[in-house]
Amino acid sequence: MADTPHFSTAERETLHRIIHARRDMRHFLRGVPVAAEALQRILEAAHAAPSVGLMQPWRFIRITDEAQRRAIAQLVNDEKAKTAAALGARKAEFLRLKVEGIGDCAELIAVVQAPDDGTLFGRRTLPDEMALCSTACAIQNMWLAARAENLGMGWVSLFDPAALAKQLACPADAHPIALLCIGPVAEFYPTPMLVQEGWREEKPIDSLLFENRWPDSKR
Amino acid sequence: MADTPHFSTAERETLHRIIHARRDMRHFLRGVPVAAEALQRILEAAHAAPSVGLMQPWRFIRITDEAQRRAIAQLVNDEKAKTAAALGARKAEFLRLKVEGIGDCAELIAVVQAPDDGTLFGRRTLPDEMALCSTACAIQNMWLAARAENLGMGWVSLFDPAALAKQLACPADAHPIALLCIGPVAEFYPTPMLVQEGWREEKPIDSLLFENRWPDSKR
Repeated sequence: MADTPHFSTAERETLHRIIHARRDMRHFLRGVPVAAEALQRILEAAHAAPSVGLMQPWRFIRITDEAQRRAIAQLVNDEKAKTAAALGARKAEFLRLKVEGIGDCAELIAVVQAPDDGTLFGRRTLPDEMALCSTACAIQNMWLAARAENLGMGWVSLFDPAALAKQLACPADAHPIALLCIGPVAEFYPTPMLVQEGWREEKPIDSLLFENRWPDSKR
Repeated sequence: MADTPHFSTAERETLHRIIHARRDMRHFLRGVPVAAEALQRILEAAHAAPSVGLMQPWRFIRITDEAQRRAIAQLVNDEKAKTAAALGARKAEFLRLKVEGIGDCAELIAVVQAPDDGTLFGRRTLPDEMALCSTACAIQNMWLAARAENLGMGWVSLFDPAALAKQLACPADAHPIALLCIGPVAEFYPTPMLVQEGWREEKPIDSLLFENRWPDSKR
């Protein structure tokens, strides 16, 4: 029964400490590498994620080539400018935030949604959504695994997906969904950076919990 | 610095044991409730998930009404029949599998993707995808939190989303993405149930890891 352990209260509390200490990091320590074993554990955590119909639709592209990293950073910069323009009144405020750490992080990993393999099990009615959710579950495992290594991780989604797919030489039906920055950090934000910087407030949990049906009073 | 702990090797190993022991469960013990505190911890783990632009697009509908649970179970049965028909040659094999535990699990929670709130930050180019991924990250936190309570959780996606949205009285632009079965189990599957039952094999992790670009040799 080694594969099906019973967890203690202390182990449960450890999980919750990791879950609640995890942050979407954008500030990294430059020039401090990630140990190969740590990266391997993080990727194995990803691969232990659930997936609809056991599709395992996640693909990971580790960026080790500096020119490739610079080209990706440029794509992110392009999108940052477009997002800033689209934000209108909050443009200046947005541009003051550090929204990604691609130039600084030790490891950069692109996560690509694999071409649809035709799996029907559990996704006849929501095919794209369920495949995408499977990959997101894998990324959340990575986030927690990185935090448990005392490494930061940030999910950068500021890119034109078609341009990034081309840069990564993806097949036509594979879709990049994340650029993951992973690496040592000086410190973890005590609260989400967007809260800390006054960009947005968090919602209280009770406002998102309903019973039996969506309440008339809510939008 | 209570919010930004440093994790030990032992704590990291605990996380990995939980991640690797987590299963998508469909077999539950009938009539054994989930403690209110445990359910609260699981929901708080969900709410501690990252979200694009701090949208927090997850909404949870706890099903406590027996008639409502039966109506939802009927929707799932309808879709099960349609999936079986669509599977063609594997129909009989599919129908022999236990694919969901809605009738047995202690707690049933519908997860609904909230109406789009117009957040631009991090989702100008992938608006639906990034909101959906945020909710999936929250669900993965729940999965791990349930496992650490020694409770099973299963993500049921066998439903017609429009019919389920109607049954849950969701607003037009809110989308159910999961029916989560949570509760005590007799035992956890040692490997994914679809592997155990011979439905499908797992891919080796190395086949999904690339460097710098998608390899020509892969589809």
